[in-house]
Amino acid sequence: MEFAKGLTEEEMNEYSLKYRYWSGIPTFLRAPHRPNMEDTEIGLIGFPYSGGNPIERMQHHGPRAVRNRSCAYQRAHRFLQINPFDTMKISDLGDVPLPNILNPDRSAEDAEKYFRKVHEKGIIPITVGGDHSITTPILRAIAGKNSKQKGPIGMIHFDAHADSWGPTAGTANHAGAAFFIGAEEGLIDPKRTIQIGFHGSVATLEQEQWSQSMYTVTTMADIEEKGIDWLAKEVHRVIGDGPTYLSFDLDVLDLAYAPGVADPEVNGMTTREVFSLLNKLRGLDIVGADIACFCPPLDNEAQITALLCSELMLHFVAHIADYRKTRQPLAAAAR
Amino acid sequence: MEFAKGLTEEEMNEYSLKYRYWSGIPTFLRAPHRPNMEDTEIGLIGFPYSGGNPIERMQHHGPRAVRNRSCAYQRAHRFLQINPFDTMKISDLGDVPLPNILNPDRSAEDAEKYFRKVHEKGIIPITVGGDHSITTPILRAIAGKNSKQKGPIGMIHFDAHADSWGPTAGTANHAGAAFFIGAEEGLIDPKRTIQIGFHGSVATLEQEQWSQSMYTVTTMADIEEKGIDWLAKEVHRVIGDGPTYLSFDLDVLDLAYAPGVADPEVNGMTTREVFSLLNKLRGLDIVGADIACFCPPLDNEAQITALLCSELMLHFVAHIADYRKTRQPLAAAAR
Amino acid sequence: MEFAKGLTEEEMNEYSLKYRYWSGIPTFLRAPHRPNMEDTEIGLIGFPYSGGNPIERMQHHGPRAVRNRSCAYQRAHRFLQINPFDTMKISDLGDVPLPNILNPDRSAEDAEKYFRKVHEKGIIPITVGGDHSITTPILRAIAGKNSKQKGPIGMIHFDAHADSWGPTAGTANHAGAAFFIGAEEGLIDPKRTIQIGFHGSVATLEQEQWSQSMYTVTTMADIEEKGIDWLAKEVHRVIGDGPTYLSFDLDVLDLAYAPGVADPEVNGMTTREVFSLLNKLRGLDIVGADIACFCPPLDNEAQITALLCSELMLHFVAHIADYRKTRQPLAAAAR
Amino acid sequence: MEFAKGLTEEEMNEYSLKYRYWSGIPTFLRAPHRPNMEDTEIGLIGFPYSGGNPIERMQHHGPRAVRNRSCAYQRAHRFLQINPFDTMKISDLGDVPLPNILNPDRSAEDAEKYFRKVHEKGIIPITVGGDHSITTPILRAIAGKNSKQKGPIGMIHFDAHADSWGPTAGTANHAGAAFFIGAEEGLIDPKRTIQIGFHGSVATLEQEQWSQSMYTVTTMADIEEKGIDWLAKEVHRVIGDGPTYLSFDLDVLDLAYAPGVADPEVNGMTTREVFSLLNKLRGLDIVGADIACFCPPLDNEAQITALLCSELMLHFVAHIADYRKTRQPLAAAAR
Amino acid sequence: MEFAKGLTEEEMNEYSLKYRYWSGIPTFLRAPHRPNMEDTEIGLIGFPYSGGNPIERMQHHGPRAVRNRSCAYQRAHRFLQINPFDTMKISDLGDVPLPNILNPDRSAEDAEKYFRKVHEKGIIPITVGGDHSITTPILRAIAGKNSKQKGPIGMIHFDAHADSWGPTAGTANHAGAAFFIGAEEGLIDPKRTIQIGFHGSVATLEQEQWSQSMYTVTTMADIEEKGIDWLAKEVHRVIGDGPTYLSFDLDVLDLAYAPGVADPEVNGMTTREVFSLLNKLRGLDIVGADIACFCPPLDNEAQITALLCSELMLHFVAHIADYRKTRQPLAAAAR
Amino acid sequence: MEFAKGLTEEEMNEYSLKYRYWSGIPTFLRAPHRPNMEDTEIGLIGFPYSGGNPIERMQHHGPRAVRNRSCAYQRAHRFLQINPFDTMKISDLGDVPLPNILNPDRSAEDAEKYFRKVHEKGIIPITVGGDHSITTPILRAIAGKNSKQKGPIGMIHFDAHADSWGPTAGTANHAGAAFFIGAEEGLIDPKRTIQIGFHGSVATLEQEQWSQSMYTVTTMADIEEKGIDWLAKEVHRVIGDGPTYLSFDLDVLDLAYAPGVADPEVNGMTTREVFSLLNKLRGLDIVGADIACFCPPLDNEAQITALLCSELMLHFVAHIADYRKTRQPLAAAAR
Repeated sequence: MEFAKGLTEEEMNEYSLKYRYWSGIPTFLRAPHRPNMEDTEIGLIGFPYSGGNPIERMQHHGPRAVRNRSCAYQRAHRFLQINPFDTMKISDLGDVPLPNILNPDRSAEDAEKYFRKVHEKGIIPITVGGDHSITTPILRAIAGKNSKQKGPIGMIHFDAHADSWGPTAGTANHAGAAFFIGAEEGLIDPKRTIQIGFHGSVATLEQEQWSQSMYTVTTMADIEEKGIDWLAKEVHRVIGDGPTYLSFDLDVLDLAYAPGVADPEVNGMTTREVFSLLNKLRGLDIVGADIACFCPPLDNEAQITALLCSELMLHFVAHIADYRKTRQPLAAAAR
Repeated sequence: MEFAKGLTEEEMNEYSLKYRYWSGIPTFLRAPHRPNMEDTEIGLIGFPYSGGNPIERMQHHGPRAVRNRSCAYQRAHRFLQINPFDTMKISDLGDVPLPNILNPDRSAEDAEKYFRKVHEKGIIPITVGGDHSITTPILRAIAGKNSKQKGPIGMIHFDAHADSWGPTAGTANHAGAAFFIGAEEGLIDPKRTIQIGFHGSVATLEQEQWSQSMYTVTTMADIEEKGIDWLAKEVHRVIGDGPTYLSFDLDVLDLAYAPGVADPEVNGMTTREVFSLLNKLRGLDIVGADIACFCPPLDNEAQITALLCSELMLHFVAHIADYRKTRQPLAAAAR
Repeated sequence: MEFAKGLTEEEMNEYSLKYRYWSGIPTFLRAPHRPNMEDTEIGLIGFPYSGGNPIERMQHHGPRAVRNRSCAYQRAHRFLQINPFDTMKISDLGDVPLPNILNPDRSAEDAEKYFRKVHEKGIIPITVGGDHSITTPILRAIAGKNSKQKGPIGMIHFDAHADSWGPTAGTANHAGAAFFIGAEEGLIDPKRTIQIGFHGSVATLEQEQWSQSMYTVTTMADIEEKGIDWLAKEVHRVIGDGPTYLSFDLDVLDLAYAPGVADPEVNGMTTREVFSLLNKLRGLDIVGADIACFCPPLDNEAQITALLCSELMLHFVAHIADYRKTRQPLAAAAR
Repeated sequence: MEFAKGLTEEEMNEYSLKYRYWSGIPTFLRAPHRPNMEDTEIGLIGFPYSGGNPIERMQHHGPRAVRNRSCAYQRAHRFLQINPFDTMKISDLGDVPLPNILNPDRSAEDAEKYFRKVHEKGIIPITVGGDHSITTPILRAIAGKNSKQKGPIGMIHFDAHADSWGPTAGTANHAGAAFFIGAEEGLIDPKRTIQIGFHGSVATLEQEQWSQSMYTVTTMADIEEKGIDWLAKEVHRVIGDGPTYLSFDLDVLDLAYAPGVADPEVNGMTTREVFSLLNKLRGLDIVGADIACFCPPLDNEAQITALLCSELMLHFVAHIADYRKTRQPLAAAAR
Repeated sequence: MEFAKGLTEEEMNEYSLKYRYWSGIPTFLRAPHRPNMEDTEIGLIGFPYSGGNPIERMQHHGPRAVRNRSCAYQRAHRFLQINPFDTMKISDLGDVPLPNILNPDRSAEDAEKYFRKVHEKGIIPITVGGDHSITTPILRAIAGKNSKQKGPIGMIHFDAHADSWGPTAGTANHAGAAFFIGAEEGLIDPKRTIQIGFHGSVATLEQEQWSQSMYTVTTMADIEEKGIDWLAKEVHRVIGDGPTYLSFDLDVLDLAYAPGVADPEVNGMTTREVFSLLNKLRGLDIVGADIACFCPPLDNEAQITALLCSELMLHFVAHIADYRKTRQPLAAAAR
Repeated sequence: MEFAKGLTEEEMNEYSLKYRYWSGIPTFLRAPHRPNMEDTEIGLIGFPYSGGNPIERMQHHGPRAVRNRSCAYQRAHRFLQINPFDTMKISDLGDVPLPNILNPDRSAEDAEKYFRKVHEKGIIPITVGGDHSITTPILRAIAGKNSKQKGPIGMIHFDAHADSWGPTAGTANHAGAAFFIGAEEGLIDPKRTIQIGFHGSVATLEQEQWSQSMYTVTTMADIEEKGIDWLAKEVHRVIGDGPTYLSFDLDVLDLAYAPGVADPEVNGMTTREVFSLLNKLRGLDIVGADIACFCPPLDNEAQITALLCSELMLHFVAHIADYRKTRQPLAAAAR
């Protein structure tokens, strides 16, 4: 019954050995490395790319930094009371191959091809970026007419910014375009899309009008006024039951909690608000998720942003496992 | 109507070019550099000085660091729904010249002379320090009998400390003296002065008695107990309608939100509390403001304190523009 | 009456000289260095040890970093309105001598011997670690049958983790064992023990069961739901009147507030919550306290974790002085 | 006669004011900012670009960092005994505008257009990068058939690597291509081209064969064996009298002397070797120069790489001024 | 014939993809990860251990940091004109398992057991530490009576210190003992042992006497006076033809070249001296090598010490391949 | 006879305990702290002052940083074969009290008064700054007509700059004035003064003329051309036999070896050149020495500049002990 006494010394040593974040070959959450995508239900994927952001260019260091830090995780989820690694096959699939990394349009195609392969194998991708342009090829691969979803999917988008702009800086595949392209190309369903956490000063007063006209938008001002419970209900109301993607731009958080981000803004959410919200979103059918805009060279010595990414990744995995267990086993679902 | 579609490609590129914080010659909020003070209603001024603080000596790096980071700003104000750069002439006037920088008393005179020139031209100064001794020469130039204000002005002072001490460490012009000198020399009106946010441990139990006896004082304990709405009302009650100066010592904030400060104390305000308060202060007649005690070498890799200074500067500028537009155009006012 | 005017220039200079954190030989809170333990009621002690933690190994830098930063303290306590240095004899006793530092079992014995000497002299130890294994030898020296307490004492344990495990990684004297050993060896009274602030993901769903079965446990989820007032009452209810030890693992705090810690977890307490709670704990009979798991190389440039340790140390000292003054003078008490 | 006594106090203060690297609006070597290119013989130009390097992506921070640090320079050249700012018109022209920064091919065109304008005005460009792809558009603008040079020019190329590769990673305009394109497009004269300082391990044994077959190549092994005097003679022998470009990749230096570089290799030149060589190159007709591959986020706290860039820039400017003064005044020369 | 033109675009892209040090799962020199030791002639091994050094405790971060940085290597050796990865089977075997990491004596046994397995499979171990206590269990496994070597082996020891002390700080298996134990236990042959590079101030004038009496010792003073050619001859003279181990403590280097080391001393070797020496050591029969005392948290932002370790590792591998190719193929040799 | 075996376990443990740089209360070279100056022949003194330098302001952190790092020293001197702590009474006297730290002229007086007391007690001061203005009050106290020296003394001045300027920036007591004041006030003998190591670019061609006309000056160019042996002879020739002061500005070193300095210049001396020179200066009668311009916030993570200061301090102490032992015991000499 007691943990402290119930384990053999060997088990305790094994345990101790496992959770040293600095030892061994690092994979996401110490999941097995399966670059050939075999034997996998949830695929943890690195997308080391910073070619889509004209302002900040260090997001390609993201996946490595998260792998290094998340080695200490692979734990059970305190709130959901579930160990997702017990109930689902979870692998680190490695990094998206980007042979044309200096060319944003060819890189978007290369990535789309890769995620199409992931999607065809029925794997749910949890992707660590990379700048926010990573969401575009993922959506093109796993949503829309030609995907298994057979049409647009729901979208929960955490961000300080709307990211719903047309082409700029020499390409349509830039870091602020995914939520413009998503609707334009029929990948996400505007009625089932909610953008969460806009804040900070704006370039023009019209900056977010397109988003406001297309999607359900909630700003930090809304959240401060109405609270996390309201926000959770709003998400459930907008998203409902269908397949849904979760795109998490770390700049939705206040810089005190996530210093290592591109395009930072003052006055964001606290980690307790974010995780409290996530815990209230139980029951959604998540078919993919990404964590974008982590810039390791801007993180602090304690690597608190890398740690946050690890925690987010664990939450996404645990929520998917929880849903699949209780609602809709993977075998019977998206496939 | 839509931002994403309504702009030409050229405009989008121009936009993208403009907000790269690391490109070009840096000025505060990318305002035009006008060292000769021409064509200016609000002057953004650097005061790179650390000769007034016996404890911490790196505040002279402040203006450069804020210029470097604030290049990404020059945006519209989300809450006030105003783009101050559209309605007022805002310039970066450069740095206060300090030829006698090693001599605090002569430096105070040099700076006073400079700000007198700014004041005579009818320019509202927004100054980035520098240690908190910078407030003394500014007040001597823009307040008191010989100024355009013809007498003492109101003061909103954010700080963890009272800064109301007499001469110490070899000079009267030190970093903890401005709010002693302000009343002593008839520059600020004690009845229209409010000090906000005292916290941390104290050297002696009597440390803040002088302030308590002279001004309206609110500590963090008051704020935690009564809230930001109460505080906003308290400020309006004390300050009323007259010309008012806003002096913001960054150590009023908790270190999690503003690590790069001199003389830090644990348990300060959050950024959300500060900006929520500022947004509630609409309608004040701000005739000058400063941001003091930024120590860039103590900031973190993400430069969150520099970013906060940029946001504060934008708020001050936007509030002045909002007031001048709706209440009292500059032409008809202080001049 | 007024501080600013009431002090002579000489006193003001003396004051200024005293609070430069970077000058002179650094001791905890600038207390006198008394390695021979003479003339001391409260002993501030460094325990530079990281040999008990298989995951993180930089805690031995803790005491030096706290000494360096805490030089600027030695101040009065704002809430309690007391200057503990006026009413009690407080010394920096130096660091625990650890000649066998590479050997955890011999080091635990060496440390126990040292603290037994401290205890025999009637000195209340406030110890700065060091990893959390430091608590074990302290308890063995100052609690239990052979101590002046003549039996187990009460325990207030702040931590993200339960730290109630058996032997691991080659020794029983590791960083996660103190709250297992405490009960096993009759050093702490399970009925008078409260663990505060568990959070983060867990290795196994059973990880904290032993603690739950033995002690009163409050998680972050409890605290968020019921608040600090409730928590303070809960502590008073559990602890009551007897002699009590306070063990503070810095990882109970959110990383935004205490980045420089070993084994960090996301979603902890804010500093305002912690100090608000401490202020509500007036009236407890603290017979010792420690601050564990500070890793200076992980702290940020502003050293906010070192500053936090200084503030905690001041709070502990002030609370003890407050209690001794009003309730139970040291002479009449534990001796 | 004496400096210390011969200056008035005002002049000394002016001097002191001038060389504080942290004050005022920063330009290269404190040269006047002339974005319109007027009144300029030597143009100091920032090229904040990192879109050409698939491996390292932080070189776009280079120009800002060099401007910030080089403010303390603008001095006389000790060896040449010349103050170039007295004899030539030197300006900071600002940064190359890069509206299509995410697209390497369009960016190369944008930059070429900009440098063509510089070249047409008869300005000698000294450019601070940016990754090493910056050299390609500069050469296309100032060398070859359509330039004022009416043909290929000489090239002195300092680098650990050959940088003579064909298209890769999705573009021909990448950071390792300039010295392949230079010959292919008739911009540099292979007979008058010398590559200096190859070292470090190599990807394949054939990696540098193309360079070896086209240009004069000297490796670190050659330099160690034969010395700097030999190398200087070798440069003079290869380059002779014609117009010559100097391209300086910082990775030619040992990492101890230039830590903040992309694609670092162990075992490079010392700064004393580099500047000794430069001093021996008097008499060359330099028509342009660049400093490539500075990555400020990798520089150390003392910014020694930024300082080195400032010193290099001063050397280039002084050598051009020295040549123009004694040999071939600008008016009579390239125009 | 030409590299730039001779490769297909696909090959160039493959090349580009391969040498991005920040992408993919990191292994030493991108060697295949073979934790089961199959198909391996040279095994690259991490030994993440800092439990043997009472002074500095961050060496356990070494292997991870070297893996992360060395991903950009796996190149050909410029001097030896050999690509060792073409001629030998080289694997990353992962990290030494250390379940009893807090116990130095049990850890030494655990490691010895591991290296015995490596040795039995005929694999030549190249180990990255870890503090210098790592050499002891390696020698116990691969040298001495019970090893395939059937007796003591030769030793080339680079170090600022003699590391020839008896038990201290609670264990015989500490970081300064390997070269005392080596001779005491008959693992290394004193006549075939050379210690290279002693420098820095000393604790007592007698500190190095034991070494002087046992081994051939060369100090930095010797090296400065007589040069690298002399030193190379001295090594060949002492070592001769037999099986030899190379133990490289990074503190033999000057801190300018290797800042991230434990127990640093001023005035060491330059990297050019070290690699020049290594290149002159061709023809030695290396049966194992280690790199000790790398402390990543002390390395600079550019990670020049990690890069140096990568270069050293490549040199060791290349020299072994060179020797095996030309002198004594592995199959016919140690097995 | 053997160190490794000759010590008892207790002695080895004592040894291990002693040289952990991070434990205990830090003093210079672990010398006893004697703020009352009793029982002392050589006084190690901190002078935490940065009020004399208008360009860089972080030198006041110097003494603390050197104390923290030098705890690991207190060793024997390898070249001189002497343990100065065995033959002389060496104390850490603490820091110069600077109650008027914001006022440079009063601070110079305060410091002079302090050093006069040191001088009167016959203590040889070894001072760690602080900016280079610290040399002025030291010379005023220990040299000139009113000192025990009864007149000007010899001066060996290591520096990149001449530091021989008149008043500037509001005071005569600035960081560049000591070697102007020294001659003006009859404190140093121009004929017995040598300045060593000028390098870097210069503000005006006349910058060093005053020094050239007064003193013996050797630039880096001289040193590179003629070597360290020549330089040592030159020092002996200029200085001869009389009492001599040694003032060491760290910027004489190349930044690779001493990054943490104010006013850095490229192309300085290596540490091996500096210590080789110092070892050749045996036989000088050093009556005081200082180490100036250390800026800890600019040092790297490995603190190599702090370590260098420790090594310099040890050298100074050892040379004085060597001279006093062999030539002129302190009792019979300066007193």
